Amino acid sequence: MRFVVVGGDAAGMSAASRAKRKMPQAEITVFEQGYDVSYSACGMPYTIAEPERSMQELVVREARAFREKQGLDVQLGCRVEGLDPAAGRIFGTTTEGATFEREYDRVLLATGASAVRPEVPGFDLPGVEVLKSLEHGRRIKDYLARNRVHRAILVGMGYISLEMAESLRELGIEVAMVKPRPELLPWMDRSLAEKVQEELEENGVELYPGRSIRRIESRGGQLHLVCDEGELSGEFILVGTGVQPNSQLAANAGLELGPSGAIDVDRHLQSSDSKIYAAGDCADAYHVVTGDKTWIPLALWANRSGRAAGDNACGGNVRVQGVAGTSVFRVLGLEVATTGINAEQALEHGFDPAVVSIESRSRAHAHPGAKTIRVSMIGDRSSGRLLGAQMVGREGVAHRINAAAVALHARMNVEAFSQTDLAYAPPFGPVWDPLLTAANQMVKKLET
Amino acid sequence: MRFVVVGGDAAGMSAASRAKRKMPQAEITVFEQGYDVSYSACGMPYTIAEPERSMQELVVREARAFREKQGLDVQLGCRVEGLDPAAGRIFGTTTEGATFEREYDRVLLATGASAVRPEVPGFDLPGVEVLKSLEHGRRIKDYLARNRVHRAILVGMGYISLEMAESLRELGIEVAMVKPRPELLPWMDRSLAEKVQEELEENGVELYPGRSIRRIESRGGQLHLVCDEGELSGEFILVGTGVQPNSQLAANAGLELGPSGAIDVDRHLQSSDSKIYAAGDCADAYHVVTGDKTWIPLALWANRSGRAAGDNACGGNVRVQGVAGTSVFRVLGLEVATTGINAEQALEHGFDPAVVSIESRSRAHAHPGAKTIRVSMIGDRSSGRLLGAQMVGREGVAHRINAAAVALHARMNVEAFSQTDLAYAPPFGPVWDPLLTAANQMVKKLET
Repeated sequence: MRFVVVGGDAAGMSAASRAKRKMPQAEITVFEQGYDVSYSACGMPYTIAEPERSMQELVVREARAFREKQGLDVQLGCRVEGLDPAAGRIFGTTTEGATFEREYDRVLLATGASAVRPEVPGFDLPGVEVLKSLEHGRRIKDYLARNRVHRAILVGMGYISLEMAESLRELGIEVAMVKPRPELLPWMDRSLAEKVQEELEENGVELYPGRSIRRIESRGGQLHLVCDEGELSGEFILVGTGVQPNSQLAANAGLELGPSGAIDVDRHLQSSDSKIYAAGDCADAYHVVTGDKTWIPLALWANRSGRAAGDNACGGNVRVQGVAGTSVFRVLGLEVATTGINAEQALEHGFDPAVVSIESRSRAHAHPGAKTIRVSMIGDRSSGRLLGAQMVGREGVAHRINAAAVALHARMNVEAFSQTDLAYAPPFGPVWDPLLTAANQMVKKLET
Repeated sequence: MRFVVVGGDAAGMSAASRAKRKMPQAEITVFEQGYDVSYSACGMPYTIAEPERSMQELVVREARAFREKQGLDVQLGCRVEGLDPAAGRIFGTTTEGATFEREYDRVLLATGASAVRPEVPGFDLPGVEVLKSLEHGRRIKDYLARNRVHRAILVGMGYISLEMAESLRELGIEVAMVKPRPELLPWMDRSLAEKVQEELEENGVELYPGRSIRRIESRGGQLHLVCDEGELSGEFILVGTGVQPNSQLAANAGLELGPSGAIDVDRHLQSSDSKIYAAGDCADAYHVVTGDKTWIPLALWANRSGRAAGDNACGGNVRVQGVAGTSVFRVLGLEVATTGINAEQALEHGFDPAVVSIESRSRAHAHPGAKTIRVSMIGDRSSGRLLGAQMVGREGVAHRINAAAVALHARMNVEAFSQTDLAYAPPFGPVWDPLLTAANQMVKKLET
């Protein structure tokens, strides 16, 4: 069995490792266009924030270890440029310009996603960066070490940008955040998003939403972000305006893409060609709430879908449930978490959404140090189902959201969720967990 | 509608409040034998630990507020001593010795539980206390303030005792813990219980399990706990050897009791007499894992079952799921959490249990400050169902357990749970949440 993996990051290496365990005699080759495999991409903002730490610490396992300890053939600097399903063959070019090709019995596309760069002039100037790969992380860390950066401009206000805002503030750098759309965190309940906005402003982060960005210019030793509404200047610009799936290789080979442009895969991670699997950020997934296809490129799914694809490529029969859209991030002193869908998405998918927003506390009555936790919960009036939850608070948010995520996988209705026996002790929350308080409110709302 | 509530703590006041909202014209009377209603009993160890704080802070709402703001007739110092189901009447005696009686259309027994005192001599000496009611808490706090206590002896090693061990250490008091049974936390996986033991020992808590306690003596200004294996001395002894349901009133009235001696109630909190409800620590509940009756007196269930009983007494139709046995406590630097049943209980209930124990981390690879999290997971070989989980760690345990608790309510199998989309960000955990790592291991174990 010849199993070829295209892309050596989370999904690709999870697949290769799993395949080798499942079928030790298989010939498994991983082609990675860069020189890093298996690293913690999500850790980059935190490592950038600490001058004494090296980006290299984020490498979980080096290619050599995969070769020597797991018997995987890992080829670095090898860009796969074509896939011939009829011949069962991939081909490409190395960094040095040599060509290569390989025949496969099964192939996994784990080509990931790329940062989107706005199509306006100046986004390729020195000091203008994106943060997607470890190589980007190294460039940014190096740039910040070598240049006197007093002020950074972050274009985009997604969670990578928000995490980087925290890191840059920790480095003592002034931060201005700019985005074309008028709302901060548009997917969030407004009352929760406002808390994030307040936290940013209280920590000296300047916010410029609703700006029409025209170009970046380099003048007088500074970078200038020119918008219709005026100009912002600094020594470093980070572009975090989203990512897109690297599905061109698949499209060129005639594979079907889903509505988000990611590679369309079934519950066994098989593409429209049964010998070709796809997993991670380049492929789509079922959403456990809507049942529809979605594309939410996040780390756990990359690892999980890669692992399942590696299993299935070697004769396994792992059927994946999909994603609930669970995520958490920290921004300065706040934990921000979400799972499921919001009211707008619920409407788009034919639900009749009801929303409740409540305030609760992170510790029990009279327990010192309690902080406010805000919960927004989304339920369906027709079926009573829980559709999603969002939380913001200074503590006790990151792991609490998981209770709602599991309920979404179980397709629980809000009434059943409101009856769950969640943990209570005074240092950790009120008797009625904030999620239960929200669920109790929602039960009442759905009854009327 | 005349609704009489016997007992004014969590279950009783939740019921009375709910009933009044549901049926504002109802005549609702609460008879409480003591003088405190609605207080945070679980907060007592923490308030005892802080000399500048008063136990009174634990009162969530005073009787007067229930009377004035909610229109509830709350009678303090009224001990209900009899219940005549045929006549629909309760009767009792006040603290001053006057008798009272009241007719009811519906009655709720919310008489709680009492601390068990071992039947050996000396447990009534001054300086020997139990900690169950706020009045006990006040006595202990007062005793510690008025006496020079260098060393305290805790009899019993349940979580009240463990929380008190923490509080007493914070007050600079030496702590010795004694129990008859040989094992610390016998319901826990041994590898996890050992971590609790190490934590206690590292914090200077002396442990004396497996002692046969004979009596307490007061000699030379000290209390002496005399065991077959020797004597322990100190100035304060706390007896935390468990609780028992206050179900005598119900038993005398001919109501059925469950196997634990608690009042037997159905999913509507009705006792064997349809006009008599019971809720909180005096009543039993269905266990969502076993489907059998259980008695696990904890605060959330007291509030939830009281509320449901109040609703149902006033014409509602709330059907309660029951308890999953979820609990969490902090002991010194450790968070200890559990949900569901352990292997021994699984065997007793006819399951074929498999157990996995894993170690994971509280933060991502290379994220500073990560601590070890230990998870023990129990699954059923025959059905593949998740039966329980236990966790110990210095952070990230208390709320994580809730994900497993929700899965138990949903009767998920381990494979489905292993596929849940749990939150990930480097400050809060590894990509694979510790519960998912345990679930992945369990999936493998159940396959073989």
